[in-house]
Amino acid sequence: MTQRMETFCESMKKENMDAAFVSSKENFFYLTGFLTDPHERLLGLLVFPDEKVVAVLPAMEKGQLKETGFKGDIIAYQDHENPWEALADYNESVHTLGIEEEHLSYGRAGQLIEAFATPEIRDVTGLLDRQRLLKDEKEISIMRKAASLADEGVEAGIAALEEGVSEMEVLARIEFEMKKRGVREMSFSTMVLFGEKAGHPHGNPGDRTLKRGDLVLFDLGVVWEGYTSDITRTVAFGEVDEKQREIYETVKRAEQASLDISKPGTRIGDLDQVARNVIEEAGYGDYFPHRIGHGLGINVHEFPSMSHLNEDVLKPGMTYTIEPGIYDPETGGVRIEDDVLVTEGGYEILTKTPKDLRII
Amino acid sequence: MTQRMETFCESMKKENMDAAFVSSKENFFYLTGFLTDPHERLLGLLVFPDEKVVAVLPAMEKGQLKETGFKGDIIAYQDHENPWEALADYNESVHTLGIEEEHLSYGRAGQLIEAFATPEIRDVTGLLDRQRLLKDEKEISIMRKAASLADEGVEAGIAALEEGVSEMEVLARIEFEMKKRGVREMSFSTMVLFGEKAGHPHGNPGDRTLKRGDLVLFDLGVVWEGYTSDITRTVAFGEVDEKQREIYETVKRAEQASLDISKPGTRIGDLDQVARNVIEEAGYGDYFPHRIGHGLGINVHEFPSMSHLNEDVLKPGMTYTIEPGIYDPETGGVRIEDDVLVTEGGYEILTKTPKDLRII
Repeated sequence: MTQRMETFCESMKKENMDAAFVSSKENFFYLTGFLTDPHERLLGLLVFPDEKVVAVLPAMEKGQLKETGFKGDIIAYQDHENPWEALADYNESVHTLGIEEEHLSYGRAGQLIEAFATPEIRDVTGLLDRQRLLKDEKEISIMRKAASLADEGVEAGIAALEEGVSEMEVLARIEFEMKKRGVREMSFSTMVLFGEKAGHPHGNPGDRTLKRGDLVLFDLGVVWEGYTSDITRTVAFGEVDEKQREIYETVKRAEQASLDISKPGTRIGDLDQVARNVIEEAGYGDYFPHRIGHGLGINVHEFPSMSHLNEDVLKPGMTYTIEPGIYDPETGGVRIEDDVLVTEGGYEILTKTPKDLRII
Repeated sequence: MTQRMETFCESMKKENMDAAFVSSKENFFYLTGFLTDPHERLLGLLVFPDEKVVAVLPAMEKGQLKETGFKGDIIAYQDHENPWEALADYNESVHTLGIEEEHLSYGRAGQLIEAFATPEIRDVTGLLDRQRLLKDEKEISIMRKAASLADEGVEAGIAALEEGVSEMEVLARIEFEMKKRGVREMSFSTMVLFGEKAGHPHGNPGDRTLKRGDLVLFDLGVVWEGYTSDITRTVAFGEVDEKQREIYETVKRAEQASLDISKPGTRIGDLDQVARNVIEEAGYGDYFPHRIGHGLGINVHEFPSMSHLNEDVLKPGMTYTIEPGIYDPETGGVRIEDDVLVTEGGYEILTKTPKDLRII
């Protein structure tokens, strides 16, 4: 039994849960070390607080689960078989059952509730979120590597900039360089946006071609050994005007304000508020429509959500993004984003790409 | 109001549903034409059978939704806002509420049930699945293009094969060529597997390098204008032995058997059964552990699931994969997969890459 499973079982006992059904591939990976994407098929881990564990997964993945050293029972089902019936055999006095309420579908929850004869349902998401919140040395080491690859992705993108190149061509070059380095999956759809296209906080790369005077926004990340990175950099191509520079420097100061207070004990909401203050004082308050950042780890967006309302405090081992932005539909957009680790004494930035305004 | 929305509203009326909340990005796209990935944020479409429609989405995406010509109400929420309260304002005598039971999470369903004062819940997945089952000319035209890009992906992979190259290097080259052609997203994690690695039906590409005598399995697809493709081809590198050839030819015959009966009126389960018979008669029955295929469209795996138990029949306009495989842990694996459209007179194969055994 892994340390992580033991800790989870301890949490379940404290909450008086008779069993939990963990259904997200991320928590399955966190608890077992087996990383798989079941697509629409059912994947799950039935955990009892005495540390009995039953994995449910497609038959074709059974071998790979066993290779990782998994010691529990395995329900390996074929596509035409019903895994819920096999799960029902494990219903031994389960009166309270934990599920991932925000992950498990309403339909599957219904199947589970039937298989376990209508237990009381609790949410285990919070238990696992809190357990995953503080990263250990091994996790941090993997995340440093993931962040370093993201840095290389930005450099690959910058190297591909030339007059007339399209957003998609630059994106293709970035992902090629990442895959060549062994990255199987980007952590989200890579963004490469030129000029006015970057004026949308969630624009889509396309066939817009690059011209002098454009701001270029890169937002990308990789999945490395199950952990994610997420970086944004904005550079200028050829030349930069005063308005673009003012926006850039405002975002940079906003990000630094947030980094400056990144240390144990800081209220998380303040990370958002101090950056927002910088942007509002510069007169761009209406152009910063999203939160300052999000937790980062196995999921590229994970607990906690870092809005100004968050009353929790930073602790050593937390990893998250800081990503203020200003999106001016006319001038274009600027966002700067780093991956940050809270340390005992303050913070470490995992993404190392320089942030002084670069004119390519 | 779009024709698709009208059809959906008609279905809702027949089922006596007072409203439906459509939550998957695929059905949101199908009904509105707006394609977006909200990640963990809430996206939804509240539809009333009189064709009143309310979209719920992150504030930063409101502009892009409006650009697509969406005419309904919009609840555009910031990260710190609660969209369920705004939705509750639309509760006018909703006694029965449709949801996507296999998509909407248990937690979100709970919020919705509260917002609508505990209506009876129905599943609308089937209504939308059946509506999406038969593709129109525009959809087919896009899927032909998606399949054609997948063909080019296989050719790019074959062109990258040389002694000592790694699976990931070949994968990088394939995706580079796809992205250069404007593909923003592969339809799933690209598979490039060499030799014994292909002996797992769901292996993972890595640093295994290519050597003479390996079978090489490619499984890939793209998303093009919201629609997917999915192709598998297996080739031999340098030389092929008798066992490999026998497995290859068996899979090829199995696929052809399934194609031969692909026409209106065929029982879907028979597509699986005839291919399975070929493989079993050749003595490899234990090495074909998955269904023959799956529906293909906006989702790379969509309705229907094509196992031998499926009692439905083929109709013109249906699109799906046929993908028998034999996975021998010692010899390696072979899978051949095409994207198929049922026509009035039989079938059209959308993927055109040749299937005679190629020795590269």
